[in-house]
Amino acid sequence: MFEVSYPRSVPERRPEGHQPAAPRFSLRWPTPRLTLVSVYFGMQQDALSRADKLAFFARIRGFLAQADGPQADEVMQCIDEAGLDNAIVVAYWTDPTLYARWLATSGFRSWFEAHAAANGAPGYWLEPVVVPYDRHETIYSASNYKVGFARTVGAEIVSITTNGFFGAARDRLPLSAVDVLDSPVHGVLSPAAARTSARGHWIAELPHNATLLRSGQYWEGAGQEQLEDYIERLQPKLMRGMQHLMSTRSETGCLSLRIMTNVNEDGSPRSETSVYAGFMSMAQLEAWAASHETHLDIYRHAIAMNRLHKEKREVVTWHELFVPQLGNVFEYINCHPMTGILPYARALRVQTGE
Amino acid sequence: MFEVSYPRSVPERRPEGHQPAAPRFSLRWPTPRLTLVSVYFGMQQDALSRADKLAFFARIRGFLAQADGPQADEVMQCIDEAGLDNAIVVAYWTDPTLYARWLATSGFRSWFEAHAAANGAPGYWLEPVVVPYDRHETIYSASNYKVGFARTVGAEIVSITTNGFFGAARDRLPLSAVDVLDSPVHGVLSPAAARTSARGHWIAELPHNATLLRSGQYWEGAGQEQLEDYIERLQPKLMRGMQHLMSTRSETGCLSLRIMTNVNEDGSPRSETSVYAGFMSMAQLEAWAASHETHLDIYRHAIAMNRLHKEKREVVTWHELFVPQLGNVFEYINCHPMTGILPYARALRVQTGE
Repeated sequence: MFEVSYPRSVPERRPEGHQPAAPRFSLRWPTPRLTLVSVYFGMQQDALSRADKLAFFARIRGFLAQADGPQADEVMQCIDEAGLDNAIVVAYWTDPTLYARWLATSGFRSWFEAHAAANGAPGYWLEPVVVPYDRHETIYSASNYKVGFARTVGAEIVSITTNGFFGAARDRLPLSAVDVLDSPVHGVLSPAAARTSARGHWIAELPHNATLLRSGQYWEGAGQEQLEDYIERLQPKLMRGMQHLMSTRSETGCLSLRIMTNVNEDGSPRSETSVYAGFMSMAQLEAWAASHETHLDIYRHAIAMNRLHKEKREVVTWHELFVPQLGNVFEYINCHPMTGILPYARALRVQTGE
Repeated sequence: MFEVSYPRSVPERRPEGHQPAAPRFSLRWPTPRLTLVSVYFGMQQDALSRADKLAFFARIRGFLAQADGPQADEVMQCIDEAGLDNAIVVAYWTDPTLYARWLATSGFRSWFEAHAAANGAPGYWLEPVVVPYDRHETIYSASNYKVGFARTVGAEIVSITTNGFFGAARDRLPLSAVDVLDSPVHGVLSPAAARTSARGHWIAELPHNATLLRSGQYWEGAGQEQLEDYIERLQPKLMRGMQHLMSTRSETGCLSLRIMTNVNEDGSPRSETSVYAGFMSMAQLEAWAASHETHLDIYRHAIAMNRLHKEKREVVTWHELFVPQLGNVFEYINCHPMTGILPYARALRVQTGE
């Protein structure tokens, strides 16, 4: 299996002699995948009917089906931080040249940009993340459910031991051996831009070393006992944690947070969710995870259930984490001014029709 | 010395058993430098006096002297393709976090963007290249003159044998072992945008897998014989080659080309030049190098002089080459519409004063 490692100049976080109590897994490919690309496509409106969402999914998937399209995609929905309804498609490429070729030839870009001329709803957004391999890490609670980058060709879920201690996520990032992954602005979040409108076409720059986390939960087919535990005990803890991250942004450095539900082909919700959140720095996410009661609550409960059920655990949890460097530009067309990273990032409005 | 290598899936170009006839050198650092950053800052006007240029150099160097500034910089001038006079500073960082921090705190960006409000000359431009280590290569004809990235802390000029055959530059790029570095649009250059003005603030996206080459010549202190040979024989061949690249763009994929002369602290020209050129693809640059008489002329003459003078050769030639991926955005304020990559790249005008 392909892996990247560097002679360590930054100490590892793993305590000496640490042996994890619980089995955990991570993603590997047999041959180099040196740049990973995950792209989120969104449509946003006050209210979106099931038909609206299905039409959007079909439209985007029509583009994705063109030559050089992604190796995997998922469709989701969420009510965002501004209370608006969003339909979301995420697509995964493991070769940036294929993604660049797809962008150049699929017709997506001209369709997307054409909406800037329309003055009304819905809004559309595009959040592409292009990240060197050494700036990503993944973890899965089980090896039998593939989601996210795990659905790309050749991806395998392999056993790891870099888990079960605070700082394990950082240790799993190959670059962390030689780079402390600091925020260039020490995690300080600018006050939200006070825009009454973000009509038109905006571009917003993801800060260097921002940390993006897609953290997923999958409980399709869980039996009564584990289902009830998940719905009644774990999920509320998760929601409380997310609420905390968003309500104390100056401390957590939370740039954006979406609680997304995967949907079936008919538009009905699946027993599958994921939180996609951006933070100004890895250190801020770690501080919350290591010490805040809202995270410790989630962590302890998930660990306890894993220990109780062992290989019979029917709820799969996983995440994929990226620490992108300069050069990730997100785009928003006719979106609410509080959408995504727009309020907190350096954002520029593009003049349409030269 | 730190190096990156991958299990090869793309055949190397080196002919079997090849032993280079001439010694050549490349750059290495003792510890990982995983992302290289070179940033070109330009000022442009019909005519710039020596005082204008010195004032610009001092202004930019004032910003560069702030915390987290670059490890090396050089000041240059050039008459560009549109016939305008340019003062240029290039700055080198080997850590993208320091560059991002410098951008956030040096005051440069607000000074730069403030010019968008002014409606007249001069124009200002900013071309930052942020490239993973495995997408760069360097070559030097001698080990005793440090320039470009060689001036960054820890950089050493070490002996190599990957030289002296067509395709050697590609073989020196670590990523080429697993990636053919194709242009997503097969090197096809869009026709130059027919703009009568590019007033205001423009951003232009460097195409994925574009190839940027800074190719330098240094002959300070050369004796009469080698000086004459350089000025009368090699330099004219170089200029003929550059002319060819620019005059047959649809074939060569030449996005932009500047013939720059380094200048001394007092603004006088040094015996040191470099050509900074961008191509749609590595393959197009290679096709010219391998088969066009204008390059073969340069190549044969330089090789002959190296063989004749051996370690007494007083003209140093070198280059640094980058194949950046998506996410390199160049900026132009009040520039001539034919400046840099502006006519050939996807370019957007930024609305100033929201």
